[in-house]
Amino acid sequence: MEEVMRPENVRLSGDGRAVVVLDQTKLPGRAEWLRLETAEEMYEAILHLRVRGAPAIGICAGYCMACLSGQIEAATGPAFLADFERACGYLNRSRPTAVNLNWALQRMKRAAAQFLDGKDDFAAVRGALLARLREEAEAIQAEDVEMCRAISEYGLSLLAPGDGLLTHCNAGPLATSLYGTALGPILLGQARGFGFRVFSDETRPLLQGARLTAYELDKAGVDVTLICDNMASMVMKNGWVQACLVGCDRVAANGDTANKIGTSGVAILAKHYGIPVYVLGPTSTIDMTCATGADIPIELRDPNEIKEKFYQEPMAPASVKCYNPAFDVTDHELISAIVTEKGICRPPYTESLAALFASEA
Amino acid sequence: MEEVMRPENVRLSGDGRAVVVLDQTKLPGRAEWLRLETAEEMYEAILHLRVRGAPAIGICAGYCMACLSGQIEAATGPAFLADFERACGYLNRSRPTAVNLNWALQRMKRAAAQFLDGKDDFAAVRGALLARLREEAEAIQAEDVEMCRAISEYGLSLLAPGDGLLTHCNAGPLATSLYGTALGPILLGQARGFGFRVFSDETRPLLQGARLTAYELDKAGVDVTLICDNMASMVMKNGWVQACLVGCDRVAANGDTANKIGTSGVAILAKHYGIPVYVLGPTSTIDMTCATGADIPIELRDPNEIKEKFYQEPMAPASVKCYNPAFDVTDHELISAIVTEKGICRPPYTESLAALFASEA
Repeated sequence: MEEVMRPENVRLSGDGRAVVVLDQTKLPGRAEWLRLETAEEMYEAILHLRVRGAPAIGICAGYCMACLSGQIEAATGPAFLADFERACGYLNRSRPTAVNLNWALQRMKRAAAQFLDGKDDFAAVRGALLARLREEAEAIQAEDVEMCRAISEYGLSLLAPGDGLLTHCNAGPLATSLYGTALGPILLGQARGFGFRVFSDETRPLLQGARLTAYELDKAGVDVTLICDNMASMVMKNGWVQACLVGCDRVAANGDTANKIGTSGVAILAKHYGIPVYVLGPTSTIDMTCATGADIPIELRDPNEIKEKFYQEPMAPASVKCYNPAFDVTDHELISAIVTEKGICRPPYTESLAALFASEA
Repeated sequence: MEEVMRPENVRLSGDGRAVVVLDQTKLPGRAEWLRLETAEEMYEAILHLRVRGAPAIGICAGYCMACLSGQIEAATGPAFLADFERACGYLNRSRPTAVNLNWALQRMKRAAAQFLDGKDDFAAVRGALLARLREEAEAIQAEDVEMCRAISEYGLSLLAPGDGLLTHCNAGPLATSLYGTALGPILLGQARGFGFRVFSDETRPLLQGARLTAYELDKAGVDVTLICDNMASMVMKNGWVQACLVGCDRVAANGDTANKIGTSGVAILAKHYGIPVYVLGPTSTIDMTCATGADIPIELRDPNEIKEKFYQEPMAPASVKCYNPAFDVTDHELISAIVTEKGICRPPYTESLAALFASEA
């Protein structure tokens, strides 16, 4: 973990014509890499969680736009930008909740517009533009590695050797670039002999905790125990958990945090048992334009994820209604600290998050 | 629901030689009845949750002993009782947490011992003994129907028309005899036009909420919505739940309640959102010899229920540890009322539960 490693979940193909992603829906059974060449394939891969985790989606979106830019047959800069923006808009509709998707697409658009600004001969600069966009996408990924490393260090500073830790969903290397956010301190601590005992919520309906977190921690040699989501209360009551570490898909200005469905429940249980809850994520996940969690749109997904998916036969009556939100909002008052690559924010978050961005300006 | 109905989950076969049970592990896909003739088949059916729900297990145990008594080849009363007790001990080990199993077996033993008391000619009374044991088993079931009806009426008195209700696991007709305990007020209310909207936790790992509760409520025409266990927090936050109704496997003298794993989490969430939690069960589930929940043994089950069961392929790394408790204990301070067939107990439970039994003496 301490050595130099390279991200294996998302990369540009050697010829620069495709994004190569590890299909996370096939784990832990098979490690299958997909070659995404068309906008439709990219949209499908994000929609169906083949690439998932807010930072990884952002990285993927950057590489997708770098690829798609090579397919745009425009004769002028404005025509190129119009097609480029249309493609961004299309990809942006694949997952409505994660802010990183939109953030990365905006960044790619800005890079394209800035590069083209004042350059009249489009044909002459087209090659350099494509190289610039590829460079921008690579920068998004490289910056994410640095961010994750910083988040992991800050997060580890909140933990003690031998701690029992509970995590929900997956915010590890697969979901980011390297280290991860919520799993970053665990993997860093493992490399430094902290000897954590980790409880991984399986995270229904898509079981990212069972399939991905248990897989990543097990592979890294961490002492991990898989539990069903509804066992978290008992594990906490047993005294086995000293801290909860969760990622985030979007954090509002007051600290309300949208993350995988069930996170708010974990936080309420932790509060009941007097256990701290740490939200870990890059500052790109903090959306200061959302005053509170009520402003964060929550994606409702296919009921068959609950009723049928993964099962040999339907596990609920076909006629029964399902409510299948992908995320929930954890109230800021349930969160002990929000850990970013720029430092650790404590309540009141309206002040500490604002200060984080103010110090940047 | 208001009409006369007959239990369909557990009954004695026409020839009295077998217990016929609806295999609940096959629902909702198929309704398959199993004929249990040997002690081993009976043990297996209880262990593997083909018959499940504390009252149904008790009823099943009564019929099992009525059947097995016909297979005992003893020449004397004491020899019969020794074999009978051995068989009771064997069945009792199939599920360690549910008090009804032991309760029903003790009752059958008492009936056998009382019948044989003072009767020296065993051969002459053997036929009458078997009839007496069959009668005792039938009485356990008939009394359960009456109990469930009373519990349902008491429970319904706590609810208002149009209420949103959340339930965990399955404590319906399949788990009891008729009506059910936690589902009793819902089914009774449905028949009386209360128009409840019910949210059913799917209840991992064995999905009794998806397979059984959603099936039973859907069949009865109730407006039911299935959710994953980790969605309960969001459903409550949305304001959709006015009360939580749960069953119980064992209640301690102070009101601490062992029920399906995840119940304590539901109760903590409900407390956080200011929603009452009602525990519904027969007084046979209250174990005054347990001072608190700490005295209730919790069954740990096969890790493959989490890692493999129901799935087309393994959903977690084979090497990963799992913690798989079948039940948890909900602290009495999280419970708004305990509803029995003898009335509604309110905190402090140490007093109200004791009063319930005192009024009986």
